[in-house]
Amino acid sequence: MTGFNEIMELAKRRGFFWQSFSLYGGLNGFYDYAPLGSLLKDNIISIWKRSYMEAGAVFIDTPVVTPESVLKASGHLDRFADIASECPSCHAKYKLESLVEKNGVHNPPSTVEGFKEILKDMEIKCTACGTRLTDAYEFNLMFRVTNNSETFNLYLRPETAQGIMVNFKLLSNFYRGKFPMAVAQVGKSFRNEISPRQGLIRMREFNQGEVEVFFDPEHEEWSHIPEGEKMTLVPNSGPEIQESILNAFKSGVIRNSGLAYFVDLTARMLARSGIDSKRLRFRQHRKNELAHYSSDCWDAEVLMDEEWIEVVGISDRGDYDLRRHQEFSGENVSVTVDGRTFIPRVVEPAAGFDRILTGVLFHAYYTRDNGNRVLGLPCDVAPYSACVLPLMKKDGISEKARELHVKLVGHNQSVTYDESGSIGRRYARQDEIGTPYCITVDYQTMEDDTVTVRERDSTKQIRMRIDDLLMHDNIFRNDGLKKFVQSSKS
Amino acid sequence: MTGFNEIMELAKRRGFFWQSFSLYGGLNGFYDYAPLGSLLKDNIISIWKRSYMEAGAVFIDTPVVTPESVLKASGHLDRFADIASECPSCHAKYKLESLVEKNGVHNPPSTVEGFKEILKDMEIKCTACGTRLTDAYEFNLMFRVTNNSETFNLYLRPETAQGIMVNFKLLSNFYRGKFPMAVAQVGKSFRNEISPRQGLIRMREFNQGEVEVFFDPEHEEWSHIPEGEKMTLVPNSGPEIQESILNAFKSGVIRNSGLAYFVDLTARMLARSGIDSKRLRFRQHRKNELAHYSSDCWDAEVLMDEEWIEVVGISDRGDYDLRRHQEFSGENVSVTVDGRTFIPRVVEPAAGFDRILTGVLFHAYYTRDNGNRVLGLPCDVAPYSACVLPLMKKDGISEKARELHVKLVGHNQSVTYDESGSIGRRYARQDEIGTPYCITVDYQTMEDDTVTVRERDSTKQIRMRIDDLLMHDNIFRNDGLKKFVQSSKS
Repeated sequence: MTGFNEIMELAKRRGFFWQSFSLYGGLNGFYDYAPLGSLLKDNIISIWKRSYMEAGAVFIDTPVVTPESVLKASGHLDRFADIASECPSCHAKYKLESLVEKNGVHNPPSTVEGFKEILKDMEIKCTACGTRLTDAYEFNLMFRVTNNSETFNLYLRPETAQGIMVNFKLLSNFYRGKFPMAVAQVGKSFRNEISPRQGLIRMREFNQGEVEVFFDPEHEEWSHIPEGEKMTLVPNSGPEIQESILNAFKSGVIRNSGLAYFVDLTARMLARSGIDSKRLRFRQHRKNELAHYSSDCWDAEVLMDEEWIEVVGISDRGDYDLRRHQEFSGENVSVTVDGRTFIPRVVEPAAGFDRILTGVLFHAYYTRDNGNRVLGLPCDVAPYSACVLPLMKKDGISEKARELHVKLVGHNQSVTYDESGSIGRRYARQDEIGTPYCITVDYQTMEDDTVTVRERDSTKQIRMRIDDLLMHDNIFRNDGLKKFVQSSKS
Repeated sequence: MTGFNEIMELAKRRGFFWQSFSLYGGLNGFYDYAPLGSLLKDNIISIWKRSYMEAGAVFIDTPVVTPESVLKASGHLDRFADIASECPSCHAKYKLESLVEKNGVHNPPSTVEGFKEILKDMEIKCTACGTRLTDAYEFNLMFRVTNNSETFNLYLRPETAQGIMVNFKLLSNFYRGKFPMAVAQVGKSFRNEISPRQGLIRMREFNQGEVEVFFDPEHEEWSHIPEGEKMTLVPNSGPEIQESILNAFKSGVIRNSGLAYFVDLTARMLARSGIDSKRLRFRQHRKNELAHYSSDCWDAEVLMDEEWIEVVGISDRGDYDLRRHQEFSGENVSVTVDGRTFIPRVVEPAAGFDRILTGVLFHAYYTRDNGNRVLGLPCDVAPYSACVLPLMKKDGISEKARELHVKLVGHNQSVTYDESGSIGRRYARQDEIGTPYCITVDYQTMEDDTVTVRERDSTKQIRMRIDDLLMHDNIFRNDGLKKFVQSSKS
């Protein structure tokens, strides 16, 4: 199985991502998307957006800078904290939840007092210097923004959700009072993590996509729950099961049709992005791990390097946020529909794109029999759809290849060009960054305007007319060409 | 001509944008993109990205949170400041450059001393309370981020550019040392403006797209400058001229082929986005208005409500940034190509998407002879490509229309649905939000699977088969269908 360090090495060497500000020694918990990673991330976000557009969501875009009043109402100012411990000797800081879990505590507590008890009973040591940890305290995870000219105190948002919540009335007006109403937002969020983890798994600045689905509380159902494939579900009340989403809802394992629908949508979205369904499970939160605004939550967890990592959380936020904003703003946020006045209830699927991307890399990376590494990304996720390669640099072949490259880019294709090194080495390079097709221009091209098209996974090659490649804008993005090449004679 | 207040009213009423956090009284200098504005902004950014992809740029994505060391090197910590004055009576703050310009000073100074002289000589009053202003001081425009756990001081980036500059060596490696190398980034930047202007023109958090084009200083030319259409150029040395970009470069009006190429690319990008070329000019900065890193700069300025507003700045940054980062980081950032070792020179086209979007709305909005308002947006910029409308809600027509809507969305089209109100009123509503096509399902549809397609600008209608609408994913996005409808008999 692919290890974490292998993915980090690939990411840096091939230009997917690397630590930010390395010129100045690097900034802990911050990563840059390099050229290939930026394309990959955009493709994953596109799949996510498209899934929610098809489900009828609208999209908005609100600031990351957020006034304190909003975060006081949402509870983040008082309760968005981790419980930390600082080593009395070397002053390293730890998130205690993770640390006690590593020391074998299966259900870590949720209060400072609870952790103090554990530190009294168990010998939990600083992993840096070995000193025993003794103290526990609350550590608010929000970054504050200093400004000279406003009456508000400002913070960087810890989630994109509140930008939607505070706009509920304006959005409901735009939606003409119809329910359920799904409003989505993609953007950066910020958490001053005590101990950021290596890579994109726990960052201080990260890429989120959240959807707030507002329900009429008397008709709190999503129109249609598909039958769905069997998936792995881990309810908080019993053992892991394999069940279709419709059966899980009917049997009460998933208690709410909104949660059920978005668990299924999430499974399909992740599969399209390249997550292996055998390394995906949905786990229900234990009561004591629920966020302060949540009454029920199912996490999509992806297996990476033998660890289950949350990539999407699907949470029942009830009317918590809207009711709090009504209370703190003094404005009425209820709506009247069919003579009834109510505050809607909210289900929220929240995706972490950096984690999804990491999972996609883990699941796509494999080694061929000849020892070459391949990134088997889906066609509509791969950074480049194709690479154009001249067989030789002479006899006008380069010029012909460059011309084809420009034409394909003009057709809005993400296509790269490579003329350095042997053809085998160039194929290997494209395999390792997940490019599904290599298009080689050779002597025959100069005569009849045909090229060879090599498919990444089968390594099969066929001869095609250039005109056919240029006919459809999406020829490389769907699976049609892939199946065609794989089923052809080499 | 369309006034500023009219655009603001349209933006709020129809869901393009509105002030952020209005539930809590609103936050000065921050705006939300509402559902239509979010789609419009994404389309404008897509056109921008595509322009630079075709020019061979790669894209990266770096954090908004930035360590002080980077901004010390870039000069922003010491020099990214406006000169301000505070009213001694009501404490309103003013950006002096704008205020003295409004008071008739054509070439405002660039130093605190210079402004103090002006305030001594001229009676410049607080526009809020009428008290005479007397003092001038420097006001740094960066927001600081408070953090408890790092050794760095942190800020919100004032431009996306530095995230590219500090990665130059890693990127050059990815590009295999080829020049020119164009690296682009889209994202949020932050400036703690003294007096944010109404709307999206001067925000504290804004959407930027910057491209750093690194040149070998001995081959500082872009491969090809197109002939180009005539455009309005305002050099700092003489009067406004109408000239093609190639002639402007040949005659020395634009001194550098990189600047010339990106002026032309910008003009084409803005035209595709819906900016009227008659209300666009390129103005060269006066020496005393250049940013601290810039040796020459041409701004694309767009006429909005009788004021010329900068929407893109194309700046010659020379080797300023890289040389400073080398000095402050202690790392060598030079490269060796063909036996020569050098620090590249940089040309930077920097776009402000919020301002472009505002200009696009200004230029698209017009009144028809019958008094109806229309947003004449280009087909690939409009938030919705089409709207599906059932003629009646009965006899299965609604169901048929909904089915068509779902199919079109499934084909990755941005298509909306509307069944409320008379058909004329629904057409008018779509006209006002710029939807190019209205697709009406009627009784004949039930018989022969044809619909009427009404084109926004001509208001002409033709009958088309549903199958033909579903055949191509981009049928509504290019101008083919528009020309076809306009040339057909009604």
